[in-house]
Amino acid sequence: MKKSIAVIGAGAWGIALAIHVARTNANVYLWSRKELPDPNTKTLSRLKNFPLPNNIQVHNSFPKRADLIFLAVPLQFIRSILPNINSLQCPIIVCCKGVEQQTLKFPSEIIEEFVPKQNIAILSGPNFAHEVAANLPTASVIASDNIQMAQEISDEISTFNFRFYKNDDPIGVQIGGAAKNIFAIAAGAAIGAGLGENARASLITRGISELSRLSLGLGGSPRTLSGLAGLGDMILTCTGTSSRNYSLGIELGNGKKLDAILKERTVVTEGVTTTPALLKRAQNHHIDVPIIETVAAILSDKITIHQAKERLMSRPIPFE
Amino acid sequence: MKKSIAVIGAGAWGIALAIHVARTNANVYLWSRKELPDPNTKTLSRLKNFPLPNNIQVHNSFPKRADLIFLAVPLQFIRSILPNINSLQCPIIVCCKGVEQQTLKFPSEIIEEFVPKQNIAILSGPNFAHEVAANLPTASVIASDNIQMAQEISDEISTFNFRFYKNDDPIGVQIGGAAKNIFAIAAGAAIGAGLGENARASLITRGISELSRLSLGLGGSPRTLSGLAGLGDMILTCTGTSSRNYSLGIELGNGKKLDAILKERTVVTEGVTTTPALLKRAQNHHIDVPIIETVAAILSDKITIHQAKERLMSRPIPFE
Repeated sequence: MKKSIAVIGAGAWGIALAIHVARTNANVYLWSRKELPDPNTKTLSRLKNFPLPNNIQVHNSFPKRADLIFLAVPLQFIRSILPNINSLQCPIIVCCKGVEQQTLKFPSEIIEEFVPKQNIAILSGPNFAHEVAANLPTASVIASDNIQMAQEISDEISTFNFRFYKNDDPIGVQIGGAAKNIFAIAAGAAIGAGLGENARASLITRGISELSRLSLGLGGSPRTLSGLAGLGDMILTCTGTSSRNYSLGIELGNGKKLDAILKERTVVTEGVTTTPALLKRAQNHHIDVPIIETVAAILSDKITIHQAKERLMSRPIPFE
Repeated sequence: MKKSIAVIGAGAWGIALAIHVARTNANVYLWSRKELPDPNTKTLSRLKNFPLPNNIQVHNSFPKRADLIFLAVPLQFIRSILPNINSLQCPIIVCCKGVEQQTLKFPSEIIEEFVPKQNIAILSGPNFAHEVAANLPTASVIASDNIQMAQEISDEISTFNFRFYKNDDPIGVQIGGAAKNIFAIAAGAAIGAGLGENARASLITRGISELSRLSLGLGGSPRTLSGLAGLGDMILTCTGTSSRNYSLGIELGNGKKLDAILKERTVVTEGVTTTPALLKRAQNHHIDVPIIETVAAILSDKITIHQAKERLMSRPIPFE
C-alpha cells in the first residue's frame, strides 16, 4: 500500500520537501495554514516556479492519519501546531532550525514535551529549497536517538538525487542548524566591512571548532559539526548569496543599523533571535563561544564591526 | 639585533609573505629568479599594487646567511633550489603545496632529503596573497614535528592581523594543501554543470571526510583536515572566484575540454597535476578516495561530469 506522508507547513522548505517525497510515489498531504494552490498554475506562492504533482493534496485542516510527518513550520509555531498532530502516533521528522527564545530549547526538545523521544528525528543539511524542488543533487542527515527508525526513514525517503545519511546525534545536528545563521551574519559582516575572504574562511573554520566544543558541552558529539548538518550547512549559508542572514551581515558590515535593516524586511531573519538564545544556553553551561558572543554584541549594538574584529584578533592563539 | 629573514621566490605568495614579515621589523631578503623591482613604483610584477617597504631587499642571487627561510617557489623547483640554501642551517618554512609527480612526495618529504626534519615547518591556511599584502585579517597554521620550533616561529612572525596557530601534523596539513585544488576543480565542475550550491556544499563536506581518512592512512591526524589548513583553505579555494582551479572546474562543467582550457592559460593550474599524483599515493596505501578518483577520471577524459555525478550518487550511503 502506498505510504501516506504528511508535510506540515507550506513555506518554501515544506513545499520542496512535499515535492521531493512525492517522487518516492507516496501520497502526500501538505498542510497549509491558509493558502491553497492556484488552480491554473498548481503552485503555492512560496515556491512559485514549481507546480505540484498530482500525488500532493493541499489542505488547510490537519491530517487524520499519516505514516510519517515532516514538521516544516518555523520553530516559534511548534507549540501551537503539536497538539493538532501528536495523536497521529507516527514518526515526526523535524525540519525547522533554531533555539526557542524563552526556554532555550532546540526543536526536538520542545517536541519531546508532546511525543515520545523515540518517535522524533531531525532532518538537516545544506539544502536550498529551490534546488531540492528542481531535483538537483543534495545530501542531508536524518538524526535520531532511535537509529533504527533513522535508518528506515532514510531508506524510505532517499532518492537517487537526494541522499540521507544516518546520524545518532540530534543535539549536534541541531546546534549546526541553529548556529549556521549566526555565523552567516558574522561572515556577511566580515565581507561587508571589507575584511576579505581569508577572514571569512577563518571565521567559518574557527566557528566549526567553537561549535564542536559547544556540542560536547551540551551532550552531543564534536564530530557531527564537521558533517553535512554542521560544516555543510554552514558553507551553504555563509557563502550562498540567497541567505537572508548572510545578506543581513553584509548590511551590518556596510555600517547600517540593525533596526533600519529589519524595518525594510518582511520575512524573519532567524539569526537575529537565535544568537542571544544560543549564547545564553552556552553560558548556562559555562562554554566559551567567542564568535557567537561577538555577534550578539554586534546585534545589540554594543560594539562596532571594527571593535568585533579587534576583539577576536586579540584572543590568545591556541594550539589548533 | 634585527632578524634576517629570507623569502625564496617572488611569485604573488612570496611577495605577500615578504611584505608581511617586513611588518615584524625584520630585515627581509627576497630572492627573485630574474626580476628586480621597478625603480619608480617599487613593485614586482606578480603583486603589482603593493610597493615594497624599505626593509625588503630584492636580489637575484641566493642569501649567504639567514635566521629563517620562507621557501615560496612552486613545488617542482624545490629540488633545484635546495642545494643553494641548505648550507644556511636555519629553519625552513615551506610555503608551497602539492605532490611531486615522480616521487608522490609532499614538499616537506622532498626537503628532508636535504636538511634535517627538525628544521622544517609548513605554513598553510586560507590565504589569498593580495589580502595578506593588504594587511587584512588572516589566520594560518605553522606545522612541524618540532613543535617548539613551530611555537618560536609563530611568536616571531605573528602580527595583530596575521595569526599563526601551532600544529604538530605536517602530513595532515600538506594533504589539505594538495587536495584543496582537486576539490576546487570538483566544486567548480558542479557549479559549471548547473548541479547547484547544495551539491557543492556536500562535495566539500564529504571531501573533508575523505581527506580525514586519507590523513589517517598516511600517518597524519584526521582532525587536522577540519582546521585552517584543511577546511579553511578548502572553503577559500572552492568558493572564491580568484581560484584558478575553481575556474578550470567551471569551464569543465560548461563542457569545455581540458586541452582547450589549458591552451588558453599561461599560468599553472596545480590541481591538474596534483590529482593523479595524490590518487596514486592513496591507492598505494589502499585508501578509498572516491571524489579524488572521480576528478582524475574527469581530467583524463574517461567520464563526463554527468557520469561523474551518477558515479558519486550511486555509492552506498554510509553512517555519517
